[in-house]
Amino acid sequence: MVDTIQDSNQPTGSYSQTERTLFKRDEGHDLIASNRVEGTNVYRPDGTKLGQVHHFMVGKRNGRVEYAVLSFGGFLGLGKELRPVPWDVLDYDTEQNGYVISAEEDVLKDAPYIQEGKTPMWDRAFGAHIYGYWGVPY
Amino acid sequence: MVDTIQDSNQPTGSYSQTERTLFKRDEGHDLIASNRVEGTNVYRPDGTKLGQVHHFMVGKRNGRVEYAVLSFGGFLGLGKELRPVPWDVLDYDTEQNGYVISAEEDVLKDAPYIQEGKTPMWDRAFGAHIYGYWGVPY
Repeated sequence: MVDTIQDSNQPTGSYSQTERTLFKRDEGHDLIASNRVEGTNVYRPDGTKLGQVHHFMVGKRNGRVEYAVLSFGGFLGLGKELRPVPWDVLDYDTEQNGYVISAEEDVLKDAPYIQEGKTPMWDRAFGAHIYGYWGVPY
Repeated sequence: MVDTIQDSNQPTGSYSQTERTLFKRDEGHDLIASNRVEGTNVYRPDGTKLGQVHHFMVGKRNGRVEYAVLSFGGFLGLGKELRPVPWDVLDYDTEQNGYVISAEEDVLKDAPYIQEGKTPMWDRAFGAHIYGYWGVPY
């Protein structure tokens, strides 16, 4: 597999040689390091860049990624807001080394976002809302 | 729930008010933000601090945390090495706002670690080795 790591995917900060090699190496496999998640690109099926994964929300106990929180920087005039989507909405694309969302543009445009100054409770009601919007069983 | 966020758990870098509130808020729930994972403390059952979660390894497709990679800074003379453990080895403790490992000290001491300059392939053989060591079904 050709190494197509982009600058935006490089971990920042101070890392040892072991860590740097580790981060690079994992790109060829099915796993991704949590500290590489930030900045992983998200695309439309046609290859248009949609935004980036800002972070994941992970179940502390069950170790499941319940949301990918996406940053759509100004796409479709959305402004830079954080939009939590169910993990299953994302398809990993090894060619692009990023995630693809197949949803229609109007679905993307109206997707629930995290408002400035208001934060989700990440509770079941919020989960039902987000998963319901995206049509994924919760 | 009392907010017991420690400095080591604070996200670093430049974040908006929304993001800061978001990170803080999620502490009270079952989810943790991937960019807060780094620095989450790991304890022994008696409350002794063992080290920290350095990062997670997450399945790109299935969204499962397959390893927590721990940093045991000099504990038991281990030096600062990265030790990948199966997720199920960790129990989340809401009191301490961190993870607890109940394994015996000799198990911890001899736990497989990532050597300087050598990195795991994160493949099935590696998984069988790590999960086998920790007695967790792979």
